[in-house]
Amino acid sequence: MTFLTPHHDGSPLYVANQEPALGATVHVRLRVPEGYGPLAVVRTRSNPDHEPEWTDAVRIGTVGGWDWWEAPITVRNPRHGYRWMLQHDDGTVEWLNQTGLHGIETLDAEDFALVAYPAPPAWLHEAVLYQVFPDRFARSAAADERPTPDWAIPAQWSDPVDPVMPARSQQFYGGDLDGIIERFDHLVDLGVNLLYLTPVFPAASNHRYDAASFDTVDPLLGGDEAYVRLIEAAHARGIRVIGDLTSNHSGDTHEWFQAALRNPGAAEEDFYYFTDAENEEYVSWLGYASLPKFDWSSQELRGRFIEGEESVVAKWLKPPFSADGWRIDVANMTGRLGEVDLNAEVRQLLRETMLRLNPDAVLLGESTNDAATDLQGDGWHGAMTYPSFTRPVWGWLSEPTGTPYLDADGVEQTQAWFFGQPIGGIPRYTAAQFVEAVTRFTAGIPWRVRLGNMQPLDTHDTGRFATNAAPGTIPVAAGLSMTLPGLPVVFAGDEFGLTGADGELSRTPIPWDEMDAAQGRIALYRDLIALRRAHPVLGTGGLRWLHVDDETVVFVRESAGESLLVLATRGDADVELAPGLVAGAAEPLFGDATLAVDGDGGLLLAADGPAFAVWALPGVAVPSVHIALPAPEEPRGLVDADAPTPAAEVAGED
Amino acid sequence: MTFLTPHHDGSPLYVANQEPALGATVHVRLRVPEGYGPLAVVRTRSNPDHEPEWTDAVRIGTVGGWDWWEAPITVRNPRHGYRWMLQHDDGTVEWLNQTGLHGIETLDAEDFALVAYPAPPAWLHEAVLYQVFPDRFARSAAADERPTPDWAIPAQWSDPVDPVMPARSQQFYGGDLDGIIERFDHLVDLGVNLLYLTPVFPAASNHRYDAASFDTVDPLLGGDEAYVRLIEAAHARGIRVIGDLTSNHSGDTHEWFQAALRNPGAAEEDFYYFTDAENEEYVSWLGYASLPKFDWSSQELRGRFIEGEESVVAKWLKPPFSADGWRIDVANMTGRLGEVDLNAEVRQLLRETMLRLNPDAVLLGESTNDAATDLQGDGWHGAMTYPSFTRPVWGWLSEPTGTPYLDADGVEQTQAWFFGQPIGGIPRYTAAQFVEAVTRFTAGIPWRVRLGNMQPLDTHDTGRFATNAAPGTIPVAAGLSMTLPGLPVVFAGDEFGLTGADGELSRTPIPWDEMDAAQGRIALYRDLIALRRAHPVLGTGGLRWLHVDDETVVFVRESAGESLLVLATRGDADVELAPGLVAGAAEPLFGDATLAVDGDGGLLLAADGPAFAVWALPGVAVPSVHIALPAPEEPRGLVDADAPTPAAEVAGED
Repeated sequence: MTFLTPHHDGSPLYVANQEPALGATVHVRLRVPEGYGPLAVVRTRSNPDHEPEWTDAVRIGTVGGWDWWEAPITVRNPRHGYRWMLQHDDGTVEWLNQTGLHGIETLDAEDFALVAYPAPPAWLHEAVLYQVFPDRFARSAAADERPTPDWAIPAQWSDPVDPVMPARSQQFYGGDLDGIIERFDHLVDLGVNLLYLTPVFPAASNHRYDAASFDTVDPLLGGDEAYVRLIEAAHARGIRVIGDLTSNHSGDTHEWFQAALRNPGAAEEDFYYFTDAENEEYVSWLGYASLPKFDWSSQELRGRFIEGEESVVAKWLKPPFSADGWRIDVANMTGRLGEVDLNAEVRQLLRETMLRLNPDAVLLGESTNDAATDLQGDGWHGAMTYPSFTRPVWGWLSEPTGTPYLDADGVEQTQAWFFGQPIGGIPRYTAAQFVEAVTRFTAGIPWRVRLGNMQPLDTHDTGRFATNAAPGTIPVAAGLSMTLPGLPVVFAGDEFGLTGADGELSRTPIPWDEMDAAQGRIALYRDLIALRRAHPVLGTGGLRWLHVDDETVVFVRESAGESLLVLATRGDADVELAPGLVAGAAEPLFGDATLAVDGDGGLLLAADGPAFAVWALPGVAVPSVHIALPAPEEPRGLVDADAPTPAAEVAGED
Repeated sequence: MTFLTPHHDGSPLYVANQEPALGATVHVRLRVPEGYGPLAVVRTRSNPDHEPEWTDAVRIGTVGGWDWWEAPITVRNPRHGYRWMLQHDDGTVEWLNQTGLHGIETLDAEDFALVAYPAPPAWLHEAVLYQVFPDRFARSAAADERPTPDWAIPAQWSDPVDPVMPARSQQFYGGDLDGIIERFDHLVDLGVNLLYLTPVFPAASNHRYDAASFDTVDPLLGGDEAYVRLIEAAHARGIRVIGDLTSNHSGDTHEWFQAALRNPGAAEEDFYYFTDAENEEYVSWLGYASLPKFDWSSQELRGRFIEGEESVVAKWLKPPFSADGWRIDVANMTGRLGEVDLNAEVRQLLRETMLRLNPDAVLLGESTNDAATDLQGDGWHGAMTYPSFTRPVWGWLSEPTGTPYLDADGVEQTQAWFFGQPIGGIPRYTAAQFVEAVTRFTAGIPWRVRLGNMQPLDTHDTGRFATNAAPGTIPVAAGLSMTLPGLPVVFAGDEFGLTGADGELSRTPIPWDEMDAAQGRIALYRDLIALRRAHPVLGTGGLRWLHVDDETVVFVRESAGESLLVLATRGDADVELAPGLVAGAAEPLFGDATLAVDGDGGLLLAADGPAFAVWALPGVAVPSVHIALPAPEEPRGLVDADAPTPAAEVAGED
């Protein structure tokens, strides 16, 4: 398989206008290895309003062994898909889309896409996210003064997590917001700059996804004042903070639900799906009675939750709290039930409201499976999603042997947990299948949105990657999360080397007294985060795969300013990159691997695996000229009844 | 490549309930070659409300070398996607979806799908459609009495088609509805049972897509009375009739448009996209001033066009006209412009209205490219679409050399016309690429909707396939259109061997006086249509590919009652089918090819290509037992506040 092939992606090397308005005409570029083809014609093919539109590309120059072609595209729809058509001199036709080169016609869903919705805040592309589960992160002295709530089963910080119901949701360690503030030095030391807290609202569980109110911060965490303190302290250190909101459901102790339960006629009645006259039967999240599902056809709910000046969404983004955005829980199911699908309306309403309140806030939606249909740029800036990175990494870099653990019912499971999929443990992916999966599950997502997708090795909802990691692969996995396009995520505790077989056992209290022993792993994260933050190309640069086999992947992130070459391998690697794939002298930045230039100008990369290594390369040289852009008609098809109609256009529908 | 692999599709062999209601639980089946795997576990994975739901399959029996597994699936959403998960004894996991078997996780868009929307009329699956372009089909004596309209350029029946503007749309041959009635014997002789007429409304062009009214049949065609006569005569012969409606635009001479043009405040003003205060600038179809685009945000337009008792849609389906449905022109663009996308609303409104008026009527939408997003069963019963059959057939079975022709501007084109795609002529597909394209562009469409997709070799909008067909391939192409899942289509004139380089030149008047010379081709169509109609399995039976190489494809259409084995080849074929792929003695039904059983029980198929051959096989033997179906909860997640909550479910969100 050769990778010296035509390339395009959504990055600035190829798309001049990263924030086009609807109706704007944009320069897009294709690079083609010199001598490829030869090509007779290159065109773009869009499908605005589901009817094809073609533009001609012009070869604008040859730089560093690459021919550059440029074409204009007018952004007709807020999500405007396009692909490249390459016609060879011999008549052969190739198509290039987000899954690569094709000899036959391709699907609209896999087109590249320009997005005319308001752009995400630029800081999102510079962020490294650190996820904290408040009950388990750190406990301030003030926590000792607070009474344990009735529902809670108190635990000492050093107690093991009990994954069996009822302890599963009621075991209570008492971590609080001031505890987090006290550990900000650790966050600064790591280098993270975006803190994501799972819910902080009062609830009847340790995870707080069963909110009793959205109007106040749980006093057990320190209350509203502590939340203000935390965000102010974070901002003072250059760290942004986002909250966690359940738009799919509330808790059954929520004030809205309690007002409506067994109370027909209550103002909040239509916030939920009651199915009987007495308001006793209702739809819940997957049958969990404690989590009644919201009915987003309620205008009153929309107002109180999102749209109103005093709405939940508004309150916490405005001073004195000034949070920097939201991660939306169960975003995937929100507004969806049976024949009803209000998901797009809800996510668009969230985005519009947030843009009005604070255009610099981010909106991430949980969507743990194939999220492409919901990730077209109209709502979520990105997703907490697993098939496009997390599961492929597990598949490639884990030992498939199971780690026995107790499930919620206290039954011992002997197959490794794998994201709740009953497939007999962790599937075994080759490196090539890792790339195939990443490609498959990002191909339906516009580049801009892909950059906002969270790229965790694990979260509070999953086992920890380290639990099943093949020996030596943690730097590989963590390195990939920092270097592939997407939002890097560290789930608090990963830097301590914590393990945990499933999404409950991963919620281990952070062992602050073992920090010395964890210095090696902490340093790994510190170095990788520093690499990410020092090289903006890792945030927004293009991605080209340069080598893929069963054990090893090599790719490059590219911009005009700099390029980073990345090798990730599970086994020993001995890779030759063809001359011309990348140019310029390479400077090692990270990892133990060797790079040499062979006689032809190709690169020889070698490492004893598992290994993760990064080299700096020069930026990509590009032609400085641009083709002239035609004046777009806006909207498409606009005509003037007074203007003479061209003869060829009289009643011309074919 | 072996094809002795697990199989499932949407046909009755595998899906017991073909018309499930929302909330119903359905038996689905998977067949697996005996000895495959061995398999430890088989499950289905759905994603209702975008959250996975799994069911366990049970091996219910082994028949004829195949293990049959069965699982229950509750239809949670109107389009309920699902896939199969096959876990091998060695831990390997495979996924089966509409693109086949996968070693890695798969996309939701390619899932199999159960559809809970009202089912299409059963007759659609027994139909063979014959498409007529009224101006060019046949001319009754009455036509001589009618004055030629001002816009028309009169032509004699034997005149060549002039593709250059203005003749392109104004050359007028004067075919009429009574002319069609006079030729019904020909339709009956061919065996078609569904007549599709392109528009019959008054207009200022020969194609009539620029309707001046939707309220009357063009007097040039014989008027309303002739339309009544035609449909009655057709019904008397067992032929249904569907009309053609432009929901994207009207003509600029349309009464609605004329009422609104330069008349701000007119009741019809908001039917169109006027962009200036004087109602002089407006959005048209691709800039053709004669085709002003409808704005479907207008409730008044919805009422007059679709919903009202006296609406356009209603009028022609009700007596005295009693048409059997509609083909909707430019369905793909309907309701779409820039940020607005009302397409789903319009197609659903059409379907709802038609269900109310005549549940036995069909609704086909023109969508000439990737139509998958619009074909989920909520609106169109099927599409006039080209990437899933027509273009792949052209790619595989054409000579790529160009047929010079004049375009609308009178410019000679030397590359073959290919569906308006500026890609240098007809692409060259292998047989394997043909299958790849058919698979790719049907994988996103539920089986039921796929069965309603039109499967033409050409239409009034395309060149005729025969123009560029490789020698001897017409039986292959026509045979595929009759035997692959989908609605077979004959564009009037194909059975006369007509050619035509593009969508204008294909509108040749039918040369009735050359009928004798055409008997060979007519017989080919007659025989293929008879084959289709005699074997219902070609309408609704399952599809398994049995052999694919660069020159040849072999597949089988299967039901419990019968199976048909099909070979299609461009070159010489010499194919061995592995033992077990199909069972039972084969009886030749069509074509020149040989079939022999080899020593192992495999089948040897041989033909001098190009060739198309069909054999009858016994139906597929299946286990007669069914697993018990669980009682579904409806809706998903329903709970009772009074019922005790299981301990494991208290506040249990992970």
